[in-house]
Amino acid sequence: MNKNISEIINAAIEKELPDLVFKNAKIIDVFSLEVIDGDIAVLGDMIIGIGKYHNAKKVIDLKGKFVSPGLIEAHVHIESSLIIPENFSTVLLKHGITTAVIDPHEIANVMGIDGIRYMIDSTENTELDIFVMLPSCVPSTPYESSGAVLRAADLKNFYSHPRVLGLGELMNYPGLLDSDADLLQKILDAKSFNLSVDGHAPSISAQGLNAYISAGITTDHECETYEEMKLRLERGMYVFIREGTAAKNLEALIKYVNYKNNDLICFCTDDKEIIDIEKEGSIDYCVRKAVSFGLDPLLAIKMGSYNAAKAHKLYDRGAIAPGKKADLVILDDLENFTVSAVYKDGKLIDENPKSDFLKINDHKIFISEDISWDIKLNSDKIRAVGLVPNNLFTNEYIMNVETDKNGNFVPDSKKDAVKLFIVERHSPQNNNVGRGILHGLKIKKGVIATTIGHDSHNLIMAGYNNEDFSLALKTLKELNGGITVVADGNVLAVLPLETAGLMTSRPVAEVLEKLEELNKALIQIGFTGDFSPFLSLSFLSLPVIPKLKITDMGLFDVEKFGFVNIEV
Amino acid sequence: MNKNISEIINAAIEKELPDLVFKNAKIIDVFSLEVIDGDIAVLGDMIIGIGKYHNAKKVIDLKGKFVSPGLIEAHVHIESSLIIPENFSTVLLKHGITTAVIDPHEIANVMGIDGIRYMIDSTENTELDIFVMLPSCVPSTPYESSGAVLRAADLKNFYSHPRVLGLGELMNYPGLLDSDADLLQKILDAKSFNLSVDGHAPSISAQGLNAYISAGITTDHECETYEEMKLRLERGMYVFIREGTAAKNLEALIKYVNYKNNDLICFCTDDKEIIDIEKEGSIDYCVRKAVSFGLDPLLAIKMGSYNAAKAHKLYDRGAIAPGKKADLVILDDLENFTVSAVYKDGKLIDENPKSDFLKINDHKIFISEDISWDIKLNSDKIRAVGLVPNNLFTNEYIMNVETDKNGNFVPDSKKDAVKLFIVERHSPQNNNVGRGILHGLKIKKGVIATTIGHDSHNLIMAGYNNEDFSLALKTLKELNGGITVVADGNVLAVLPLETAGLMTSRPVAEVLEKLEELNKALIQIGFTGDFSPFLSLSFLSLPVIPKLKITDMGLFDVEKFGFVNIEV
Repeated sequence: MNKNISEIINAAIEKELPDLVFKNAKIIDVFSLEVIDGDIAVLGDMIIGIGKYHNAKKVIDLKGKFVSPGLIEAHVHIESSLIIPENFSTVLLKHGITTAVIDPHEIANVMGIDGIRYMIDSTENTELDIFVMLPSCVPSTPYESSGAVLRAADLKNFYSHPRVLGLGELMNYPGLLDSDADLLQKILDAKSFNLSVDGHAPSISAQGLNAYISAGITTDHECETYEEMKLRLERGMYVFIREGTAAKNLEALIKYVNYKNNDLICFCTDDKEIIDIEKEGSIDYCVRKAVSFGLDPLLAIKMGSYNAAKAHKLYDRGAIAPGKKADLVILDDLENFTVSAVYKDGKLIDENPKSDFLKINDHKIFISEDISWDIKLNSDKIRAVGLVPNNLFTNEYIMNVETDKNGNFVPDSKKDAVKLFIVERHSPQNNNVGRGILHGLKIKKGVIATTIGHDSHNLIMAGYNNEDFSLALKTLKELNGGITVVADGNVLAVLPLETAGLMTSRPVAEVLEKLEELNKALIQIGFTGDFSPFLSLSFLSLPVIPKLKITDMGLFDVEKFGFVNIEV
Repeated sequence: MNKNISEIINAAIEKELPDLVFKNAKIIDVFSLEVIDGDIAVLGDMIIGIGKYHNAKKVIDLKGKFVSPGLIEAHVHIESSLIIPENFSTVLLKHGITTAVIDPHEIANVMGIDGIRYMIDSTENTELDIFVMLPSCVPSTPYESSGAVLRAADLKNFYSHPRVLGLGELMNYPGLLDSDADLLQKILDAKSFNLSVDGHAPSISAQGLNAYISAGITTDHECETYEEMKLRLERGMYVFIREGTAAKNLEALIKYVNYKNNDLICFCTDDKEIIDIEKEGSIDYCVRKAVSFGLDPLLAIKMGSYNAAKAHKLYDRGAIAPGKKADLVILDDLENFTVSAVYKDGKLIDENPKSDFLKINDHKIFISEDISWDIKLNSDKIRAVGLVPNNLFTNEYIMNVETDKNGNFVPDSKKDAVKLFIVERHSPQNNNVGRGILHGLKIKKGVIATTIGHDSHNLIMAGYNNEDFSLALKTLKELNGGITVVADGNVLAVLPLETAGLMTSRPVAEVLEKLEELNKALIQIGFTGDFSPFLSLSFLSLPVIPKLKITDMGLFDVEKFGFVNIEV
């Protein structure tokens, strides 16, 4: 609020001129799910009135266009978009999202406190209002080497920052149920600042959920079924219906949202790549998709704005009403949520990308040049990590493979069995290389490598010949991170991700080009699958989702909860 | 929360015993407006789980009884009940109300800061959780002598008290629209502590409401019509549907409450006398009455609990869910909200009245003994204050009256014209007596007098002969306040209100007896009306509601907004 209270009063009663009046709007009323025909008056960054207004410093006749509150992203990892916060801001705004709540656990896993600091600082002046939940589970598990360990004491200093809203998704709910001391301390610290704790508890039991919520967790975005959603809603927990790149829960859940139960339900994307945001949208896409499944557009918009605001105790936004932020989306079409113009803090957003951005402190990749790409086997019967297309879980794929005369595994395109490595990249002292065999990648030659490897983000590499592995590693090391396809001794395509090995400051258009080049390179290496191998690879190292995963520490059986040998 | 987080987790997952488990409950789910068949587990003062529980230190089998969250009174003046806070607590609890938000402006008008301090201190240990909104408009207007003037600086120290939720009903909305400096400072102070401001703005215009809400006011309880309710709801303002002793808005509004728009709607009683609370109930009565008009009982209960909690940002209560306060009402019957038992902070409430209460510092009545009860008239055509039964507004009743040979007004039971006095009682230096003639009181002889006179609470007296006026004054002065009926030189009945002249610490049963005696005394003085003359009298001095009122400063025309003579 950059005007004093008397100025606000005077403009609201037309004793002085408002800065801006939108005349003849169809105002979406999220409180009663109705449409109000009227004018909207704005002073500074605040809506000061709805109803009938006459003059202003600037008058815009909307001629009956619908106006929605700016949409609110309830939970997102900017890193998963691949673009830096400043550019992420521009992209989201043009889709009508005016506020986003982020959880920077990806960059925190790479850079620790410096990563959080970077995400806070780089979002200080973005036009998109970005709020931050402090990553609660870094590292995710003890079965991988992350770039940092963040304990309660490491997070505490951030709570007083005005844009820090609380503690981020508490993934380690088994730890909570076991009263892990440091985890509980993190929760208590957040609560001591009167801040919230987000949740993430797929498959948690009813009693586990009781404990989780009683301990102070207020939201969750891991519902796949109506039963799971109901379990949370009836316990007063906010449900963020998640629709991202890999994880899509909207279709399964939206039919159960109604006028009686929607109060605690909103939308999030969680992880969505830039290419999908550009093609489909973000929260606007969630709204549009919900409407396509028959939901009242006004209710879909309420979920995408007002409910998300309430979930995060952001009472100054999420509705078109006096006293709220002048974050408005003018629509050409209601049902399709077609954005005509976006106003943020009372100012028209121009879509041109910004050129200024905060330079991150150099964060190098520390990998020895001398890695042996051989996988020596004692037997030819092995357990391969079995890739399941478009899924975060994998199989344990028992198969027989070829070995050479030295007993080293020979990749085989007919068996669809390739080498798989996780190379620790954070610490100069740590030379871990996890070795395995991957089935189901569906490439015929070459190597795919990426520095996005949930959650520790070590270097993940899969493919055929050692020369290409060395080239891929050298390429990514020089760029400080990225995604690359290498074959026959050549780099076929590369997307640099120089910001912590997760994001790039390159313009969005260039990023999209390079992603296209990567896709073309897949064709060149004979890829026949109907999934994104880059995405699939980046989840092979996630040791919390079954069944057979791989970290820099080795091959990990999630169900047995321990490391295993490649050989059966 | 008197248990540590680890104890809470362990009890929720049955690793340790909860303190209390209610088995086989029909749990009213206010989030989705459904009924959940299940158990409720409690540890200390907190609900830690719903669903299936087995053992506890104490297990109660509810055998299918409905359980409601404890009801929440959104806005009430305890003083209007006539009983002190400690007893008010007992009465409300037995009706299933477990939290009340009070605005002590009545006692603040009499005793200033000491009055607020008393209300805060006397409610420190009540079983009913009582929160306080600081009176924002003391005095209400400059046209009456109150016992104190409370400016922004006087209120500021109270904001840090944990049970102070904000600034109370901002009745002086014309002052706000005029940017009254001290009023705006009060609002800014509340906001600086991140606290709320309640509203009170009957008949405010749409633009006025825009200004009011933009300035920071979030609630209102003065809706009489659907149009007024709609005006507020669409601007995101909470509407407290008020049903009290004098003011009853529920019937007119409840039919417009539905599943889409109820989020911001709850109930309050505002002003309700003990006799009506005992006979009907408080918020339970609002719930019951709403159901009688066809509202879904679950929705009525949601309004009476969860919505009121949200309106006041009391996120720790208002629902039966993990993490919320164990404030529970066991019901024998849902539709009639028949209370079987009440649990507050996990403990069964016993209905026995408490005998301990905080003694208020003596606050004397300062009235000169020497008042002349004559009303000298220059003409026999006068404007009488025209009492309108069961209404806060009055008429200007032009009539001819009798005078004696000295030109003094002679009261006349056939004309139904009696003497009317407002005697300032707060300050030894102030000897104001406002004089007028009252039409419509419908008594045949004697005098009725009360120290409840909204809002300044000076002594209001109406009736026939001077001797009875002197006796009534003497009686109330000795008791330090009260309501009395005097005739033929005898005190026929009196209810002492020794606490600031507004409330009594006497047991409820005794108060009801004395109210009954007052009613019998009315018969003795030939009262033929179908209204409460005590109530009507106490609103004759309210100079904000039209048309002809009387204060200690004189006869006041509210529409012309100035003092007038009795003679036309």
